[in-house]
Amino acid sequence: MFTEIQLQTKKQEEFLSITRMIREIVKNSRIKDGIAIIQIPHTTAGITINESADPDVVSDISRMLNIMVPDRFDYFHQEGNSPAHIKASLMGSSALVIIKEGDLMLGTWQGIFFCEFDGPRSRKIWVKII
Amino acid sequence: MFTEIQLQTKKQEEFLSITRMIREIVKNSRIKDGIAIIQIPHTTAGITINESADPDVVSDISRMLNIMVPDRFDYFHQEGNSPAHIKASLMGSSALVIIKEGDLMLGTWQGIFFCEFDGPRSRKIWVKII
Amino acid sequence: MFTEIQLQTKKQEEFLSITRMIREIVKNSRIKDGIAIIQIPHTTAGITINESADPDVVSDISRMLNIMVPDRFDYFHQEGNSPAHIKASLMGSSALVIIKEGDLMLGTWQGIFFCEFDGPRSRKIWVKII
Repeated sequence: MFTEIQLQTKKQEEFLSITRMIREIVKNSRIKDGIAIIQIPHTTAGITINESADPDVVSDISRMLNIMVPDRFDYFHQEGNSPAHIKASLMGSSALVIIKEGDLMLGTWQGIFFCEFDGPRSRKIWVKII
Repeated sequence: MFTEIQLQTKKQEEFLSITRMIREIVKNSRIKDGIAIIQIPHTTAGITINESADPDVVSDISRMLNIMVPDRFDYFHQEGNSPAHIKASLMGSSALVIIKEGDLMLGTWQGIFFCEFDGPRSRKIWVKII
Repeated sequence: MFTEIQLQTKKQEEFLSITRMIREIVKNSRIKDGIAIIQIPHTTAGITINESADPDVVSDISRMLNIMVPDRFDYFHQEGNSPAHIKASLMGSSALVIIKEGDLMLGTWQGIFFCEFDGPRSRKIWVKII
């Protein structure tokens, strides 16, 4: 089963929880056991699984990525968004979550985050359940 | 087939090889061809595949992550373990290994490592074989 | 279906697009819907999905990784290639791409890159389609 989600990001950089959306897709698929593949078709955004209870955690990830990958550097790519591309590769473009008894298997504190690094933009998320 | 492994980490930071455990689960599953998905339900630990022959390699990965993600920074999250969360996202929360002829397909030097960044703790590893 | 690709890298560090090779394998498999798992059996090389239109983007990723993971550091591992191992873990050893209607699902700007960090070497790429 394949589903495409549309997402409108609002800031230049933000981590948006997509856990609820993915969970709903899994429930509607009525697949009891398998895996969910979440893939994003963008090169200046990423996906990561991390703590969803305290929003400060993803803020800290985003802020530290800005230190690790500074805006000022002799980048060759002329569009000014090289840091966004680099952060995208550090976070990765897909996530994998096990499905058991019809539900996404996530740890107590885990959530799935869409990482916008070059927004605001219209974004897509592809979900495949097997 | 789904299996849960329990793991007790002993240090604040350590990379533990779980290759043998995963290999055994794959052999016991009697699945000849497929993939193994190894997922961890934690937000201050990660999983990575790297060299298992010389333990200095994973020490160097761990030590360089400590330089890249310093302990001292104006972190918003008040639990003091933001660096562990950030390293978890850099390493990722799942690994994927091809299964062929009933065995895990890994390169000669590759091992699968559980990366503890906020131990010692009781940890879990989920393994799904399809 | 399992396929092994051989690759000869030419430089110490380079990002090589393998999109066309993977796309051909998917087409030849005649599998209409599923996923492609691309795994590399090496510990000083990685795999990433990023922009393929402008080659400056992967140059910038490679150059920034060299700043993040400096050559000069008190590495324990005596082979001199610890930075390559660390970069391998940052990029990851596998990629996952959804297959739909017999084709790889990638965004307009996305390509799949083999990341050589310790070349030139003879390398392998494993592709599994399910």
